[in-house]
Amino acid sequence: MPEIKDISDGSQDVLLVRITAGGEVGWGECEAAPLVTIASLVCPMSHSACKPVGASVLGQRLESPEDIRRIHQTVRANSMDLLQADHTLSGIDVALWDLLGKVTGQPVYALLGFERANPKIPYLSLLFGDTAEETRQKAEMARTAGYRALKFGWGPFGHLDVKSDVDQLMAAREGLGPDGILLVDAGTVWVDDVEEAARRIQALEACRVEWLEEPFHTGALQAYKALSQRTSVRLAGGEGAHNEYMAYQMIDYANIGYVQIDVGRVGGITAAKRVYDHATARGVTYVNHTFTSHLALSASLQPFAGGQPVLCEYPGQLSPLAYELTCQHLSLNDKGEVILPDRPGLGIEPDLNTVRKYLVDVEIKVNGQVLYETPAL
Amino acid sequence: MPEIKDISDGSQDVLLVRITAGGEVGWGECEAAPLVTIASLVCPMSHSACKPVGASVLGQRLESPEDIRRIHQTVRANSMDLLQADHTLSGIDVALWDLLGKVTGQPVYALLGFERANPKIPYLSLLFGDTAEETRQKAEMARTAGYRALKFGWGPFGHLDVKSDVDQLMAAREGLGPDGILLVDAGTVWVDDVEEAARRIQALEACRVEWLEEPFHTGALQAYKALSQRTSVRLAGGEGAHNEYMAYQMIDYANIGYVQIDVGRVGGITAAKRVYDHATARGVTYVNHTFTSHLALSASLQPFAGGQPVLCEYPGQLSPLAYELTCQHLSLNDKGEVILPDRPGLGIEPDLNTVRKYLVDVEIKVNGQVLYETPAL
Repeated sequence: MPEIKDISDGSQDVLLVRITAGGEVGWGECEAAPLVTIASLVCPMSHSACKPVGASVLGQRLESPEDIRRIHQTVRANSMDLLQADHTLSGIDVALWDLLGKVTGQPVYALLGFERANPKIPYLSLLFGDTAEETRQKAEMARTAGYRALKFGWGPFGHLDVKSDVDQLMAAREGLGPDGILLVDAGTVWVDDVEEAARRIQALEACRVEWLEEPFHTGALQAYKALSQRTSVRLAGGEGAHNEYMAYQMIDYANIGYVQIDVGRVGGITAAKRVYDHATARGVTYVNHTFTSHLALSASLQPFAGGQPVLCEYPGQLSPLAYELTCQHLSLNDKGEVILPDRPGLGIEPDLNTVRKYLVDVEIKVNGQVLYETPAL
Repeated sequence: MPEIKDISDGSQDVLLVRITAGGEVGWGECEAAPLVTIASLVCPMSHSACKPVGASVLGQRLESPEDIRRIHQTVRANSMDLLQADHTLSGIDVALWDLLGKVTGQPVYALLGFERANPKIPYLSLLFGDTAEETRQKAEMARTAGYRALKFGWGPFGHLDVKSDVDQLMAAREGLGPDGILLVDAGTVWVDDVEEAARRIQALEACRVEWLEEPFHTGALQAYKALSQRTSVRLAGGEGAHNEYMAYQMIDYANIGYVQIDVGRVGGITAAKRVYDHATARGVTYVNHTFTSHLALSASLQPFAGGQPVLCEYPGQLSPLAYELTCQHLSLNDKGEVILPDRPGLGIEPDLNTVRKYLVDVEIKVNGQVLYETPAL
């Protein structure tokens, strides 16, 4: 967007990945800081385990899912000490699956082994209002718009006193009505302070909150587990995982009920599908984390497309950039459900007019040599 | 270095952090891809939890250790979704401790609460030779040079068959002699394949290897634990941890005997000291991971300076860049031990002539605006 605001709306910029092979074009999106991710694509090699991501991708063979897994593993090994590489790989991996789907004429979920894409119940993601009354109005509007599930997060929640948070929760439930599914996202606000989180338990239970998301830092596994043992509210987390191992750890040690995976961070669809399999085998429900475009939304639904019909995150406050980015959108059907298209690849194409409109010129020079400049469309 | 080779020598480039305040200058070093780390310092904000690292550091008050912890926490919160930020923060945090030490006239270890810096037994880090015979010769030279402990890692180890690895281990032990402490670093070569690692157990035990380092990916906690239960050789790991939580998890779940922390990655001295406290309370031995300059070496020794005399990593094959980077070096005393200087801060100053000699010009432009150019010295 022309102006980036200091708010938690993650749809204010977009990092789009384009990969071409065999006459087709695949698209992916990183949920990542664009400039830093670009730098990780083109940076000079530091040593054998700290190479630019591009070096492990460009020129590789792409004919089967096994080729994507091989490229994925090569990036992980060759860029092991390049921290940003996992976010970069995520968008590349998504683009590779989109590309392979187009080359082979299959939707990505079919390439992943699912027979069909089952409908998901979308929950609308909204930011808490600045006041409880504003939150109540937002919830009421969502109910009126037909949403059966609603998540509030961030905003003032957790930053003020307990009473303010209780008022916010009561207002959300009141606005949504007694039957709606209410979810709450604390945005890691309590870091690893179990007692501070526990002061909200009573209100969370009274408002029948289905999950409490990210009370703590993704790595604070013992805090998650301790809190989970003090409440009937299920805990959710995992969006911060930037590889499958971090997600496994939340599943194995944190006693979460829902694992939330952002394919634009975790290492793309390849890593996300592994997490889905791991979670499903252990009775933890896999859901997507998505707060950007419908290209990212399609990508995020692929790894659990064939699973039981469950909730899925459905970004509801996209910036004009993120909304206009795609030619198609995953609209709700008449039952209020989301179903993936059965078109090849992700089934969602970027609108290049939008890309042109918002394109940012970037140039990176090292010792006078241009390593990157924003390519022509 | 003018030429970066595709080998595992991490001292081929350096990212130096300089921070000034109160008329003093503090220096730190990131163990990180330089260009990507620079980009994370200056990138445009994506949203409220994805801000450039510099925005949380510049202009802050620095009068006490508590100020460093506050800045540290601010970076973590404001750059939560910027993956590279942890590596960037690491060098900044080190520079802040160096600076605070100089301002207050105290060594960093004293600011951390240690009464004194105890001597450490340095182990020399070497790469496995291309052949077993080359490894034997390297080990013999290390013994002749007076080292009591020696670590071999990377090179061909784990990439060829079991017999080749057994030959390498036998050669290392033979060259080092029966009394030396022998350590082995597998460089995550088996990813999470416990059986493949277990095929080397017999030889590792026969050669009395004190620790087997990084058989697996930092996140593969269950693989670590499974292997640990099949051998008397202690496992070591943790260098990949880019925050204290990842290190806690290795301590809590992976059944390692040694946790190896790189202050240039884990979030600096602040995070490393927390890991030291966590490890010590749980009977896991904290050691440093250092493969770069003696500025980084001094920083890496501070968080466990006052602990029991144990091993410390002592990089022995530094590139000319990394060796010449500092005016002082942490030389061995007549007992072959390393002791931190009692000078203020880290007690090691960069040699600006060396910095000038190897300085790389970087320029980053976004929409025509220069966000970064290599500063004058």
